[in-house]
Amino acid sequence: MGLFDVMPFEHAFDELSHGLANLSMFPYFDMAHYLVSVMALREQPGALAVSRRSPIACWFSSMLYCFGGGVLSAIMMAEPAIAPLSNSTSILMASIIWYLVFYCPSDLAYCTATITPLRLVLSGMKEVTRTWKVLGGITAAHSKYEDSVLVMIAIGWARGAGGGLISNFEQLVRGVWKPETNELLKMSYPTKITLIGAVLFTLQQTHYLPLQKHHLMLIYTIFTVVNKSRMMLTGSSASPFAPIEAVIYKTLFAGSSPFAAIADELQKHGIDIDNGSPKESRKQKKALKKSPDSPVRGQSGSPEAETTTSCKKSD
Amino acid sequence: MGLFDVMPFEHAFDELSHGLANLSMFPYFDMAHYLVSVMALREQPGALAVSRRSPIACWFSSMLYCFGGGVLSAIMMAEPAIAPLSNSTSILMASIIWYLVFYCPSDLAYCTATITPLRLVLSGMKEVTRTWKVLGGITAAHSKYEDSVLVMIAIGWARGAGGGLISNFEQLVRGVWKPETNELLKMSYPTKITLIGAVLFTLQQTHYLPLQKHHLMLIYTIFTVVNKSRMMLTGSSASPFAPIEAVIYKTLFAGSSPFAAIADELQKHGIDIDNGSPKESRKQKKALKKSPDSPVRGQSGSPEAETTTSCKKSD
Amino acid sequence: MGLFDVMPFEHAFDELSHGLANLSMFPYFDMAHYLVSVMALREQPGALAVSRRSPIACWFSSMLYCFGGGVLSAIMMAEPAIAPLSNSTSILMASIIWYLVFYCPSDLAYCTATITPLRLVLSGMKEVTRTWKVLGGITAAHSKYEDSVLVMIAIGWARGAGGGLISNFEQLVRGVWKPETNELLKMSYPTKITLIGAVLFTLQQTHYLPLQKHHLMLIYTIFTVVNKSRMMLTGSSASPFAPIEAVIYKTLFAGSSPFAAIADELQKHGIDIDNGSPKESRKQKKALKKSPDSPVRGQSGSPEAETTTSCKKSD
Repeated sequence: MGLFDVMPFEHAFDELSHGLANLSMFPYFDMAHYLVSVMALREQPGALAVSRRSPIACWFSSMLYCFGGGVLSAIMMAEPAIAPLSNSTSILMASIIWYLVFYCPSDLAYCTATITPLRLVLSGMKEVTRTWKVLGGITAAHSKYEDSVLVMIAIGWARGAGGGLISNFEQLVRGVWKPETNELLKMSYPTKITLIGAVLFTLQQTHYLPLQKHHLMLIYTIFTVVNKSRMMLTGSSASPFAPIEAVIYKTLFAGSSPFAAIADELQKHGIDIDNGSPKESRKQKKALKKSPDSPVRGQSGSPEAETTTSCKKSD
Repeated sequence: MGLFDVMPFEHAFDELSHGLANLSMFPYFDMAHYLVSVMALREQPGALAVSRRSPIACWFSSMLYCFGGGVLSAIMMAEPAIAPLSNSTSILMASIIWYLVFYCPSDLAYCTATITPLRLVLSGMKEVTRTWKVLGGITAAHSKYEDSVLVMIAIGWARGAGGGLISNFEQLVRGVWKPETNELLKMSYPTKITLIGAVLFTLQQTHYLPLQKHHLMLIYTIFTVVNKSRMMLTGSSASPFAPIEAVIYKTLFAGSSPFAAIADELQKHGIDIDNGSPKESRKQKKALKKSPDSPVRGQSGSPEAETTTSCKKSD
Repeated sequence: MGLFDVMPFEHAFDELSHGLANLSMFPYFDMAHYLVSVMALREQPGALAVSRRSPIACWFSSMLYCFGGGVLSAIMMAEPAIAPLSNSTSILMASIIWYLVFYCPSDLAYCTATITPLRLVLSGMKEVTRTWKVLGGITAAHSKYEDSVLVMIAIGWARGAGGGLISNFEQLVRGVWKPETNELLKMSYPTKITLIGAVLFTLQQTHYLPLQKHHLMLIYTIFTVVNKSRMMLTGSSASPFAPIEAVIYKTLFAGSSPFAAIADELQKHGIDIDNGSPKESRKQKKALKKSPDSPVRGQSGSPEAETTTSCKKSD
């Protein structure tokens, strides 16, 4: 009852977290997830052309964007990869959204959804579904492999960031093959935040983290939503974990190994040490930079990247 | 009993369809399937060279041609992908046929099988097995996912056209990698007809199609056999569904979207909109066209394509 | 009791084989397997650079080297591919070894392990684990598919040589893609010896081979260890099966088929018959040969290849 009484805040926090935990993802949040995912696909280079050449490949690619996490975690746990297809309502919803985003007359659906405030809300809602997906994966893994922390993290991560992790194969459906890049070699922000979430929720589940589940859900959800909104508004793709990552990297993985010395020596002699990855990728990047006025821009890499491409031009 | 009495026809139709439904695929129809499949593999560019360099890769590739549908549908339903290998009789039959097609002294087996009337009969018999495979997949899916129409279609399609759908990975076994093309991006005729069959049999199974199963089996089988024979005799690869496809495409997927306008604009400025697919493929096609007198021709794409290559030259 | 009495030898052989059969792979032999596997990965071209760019991709790649056989056989039998991850102790051991090999200060761990006598012992111990892995796979397959010889061979082979068989996809994790080569097209020595072991143990299991299991284990283990040591000491990669292979190949796969005649003709006209595999690979080989003084050498192909690279330079 004094000045520093935090009881009301605690109470509000508790109430809010319970409210969030009881929130149903179906149908509105799921729809936001499908819409943002399909829009991210549409903004991949070449995706629009594929949608004209082969609607079936485009549809399959969209489904991998929407249900990739479920498919990947199902394969990892030897459950039917076809299972997401058996949920008719979800598939129907995702298919309608796919159709509207790619083939709506006058491109109304896509152009409406790319209006910044609306896209902000949709992306925020999509971030909320991430919490549920990670948690769902961890719960499923927990019921099968009770004491294996690693399996729980892996399944939670796969369920939450599946679309990104299988992006090489999703691209293959569209006739694109970029072996020199994948989400393990260069993690995008959504993959990273999902991995952190999977670790946190696994620690909570195994009682290493002294937090209640619904409290963690609220904290994690707020963090992802706020962070996503910040990144969209400022247009920056700077990861908020960059400093921590740098510290971990320097401490653990960049010791005074002879490699550093060798690398220095090699660079003096002008020899590139990385003879494993193709040199072309660098050329391609240069080529892309040379034509900044190309109307069909778009970024590769993360399937959850977001830009607006054709819409503003067509207005 | 009058002039327009159709009873006898109906009766004959019913009898015939019952006869077909009770037909056993084992062993003659299965053998025809293996023979036509392995011959299609042999006619792929580079396949003969692989058969000399590595018989094991060639054998594995042949098995994927023969049992690809079973493997794909097994993976999709989380059943052992190794299961087709446990049917020793089928594997033995397919292996003997593989050996005869690739390594028979004087190439007798292949040259005999490419005689047009014989190949016609064999291809017809292979088409008959398609009906059984699609039906088998749908029945298996029905017993697992009772009410999911989409899963039934997917499994039926995978079982019937598996060899084509996994062709990217089958090619990888032989050291060939063509990411710019797959059966979803550009469906071949066998993949299309199998998809239609999967849809029809699923509708029949779920009673949306008011037809008896054995009647549908007869109609579908006759259609596929007649159509295949027509295509082989006329040498045309024109799909009989082209007009329907064009109508569907124009109605659903080619609306007055801004994309059309953008594409036009881009083409005026000489910019190719399809920056997702590699340009090389076009060059390769040109290169191929330049050397029409190359003795080892062969077409890529569909694993069920049929041409005669070395045989006539060696006679 | 006479001069030619072999009883004592037989007895010693029996005793020794029983001793071997009761040997526990955990923890020393398993550790040797992990260490040799991770060192083989480190010696792949570009692997060191990946370890600096992305420790997670490097760790995942290492786990595929260590547990690839388990993952592949699990997928083939529709068991959870994630299962190896649930064995926390093994994963922890492999992860510690991965860390030491790639990031140990002053590169102590790797440089110590590459000392020839130590590496010889470690490689020998790794060969011993091969016997156990093949046998484990065959036993698992036998309990599921009782009478299928082919499935038992396939699972035993996959379990014992999994890392090699999935090398295309392991490389993809590191951003390397070499579709023109795989272990089926050009088998490495470890893959071959594992296949032979899988065949022998399957024949023993199905009683076609009149030998007791522990006797076969001893014979096979001695053969693999001796052979591996010989190859490491002489530095030769000549397969001991080359003569047998040549006889089998000539008898079965190189008959007087018209292909030979065609190939001859083509070569006369300067046309390469193998238009299925890319020509670049040859160029790349030439390019590699041109720079023999490059300090970061390493051979591609088999994931179990062994050379010393950066260590001697840094001493």
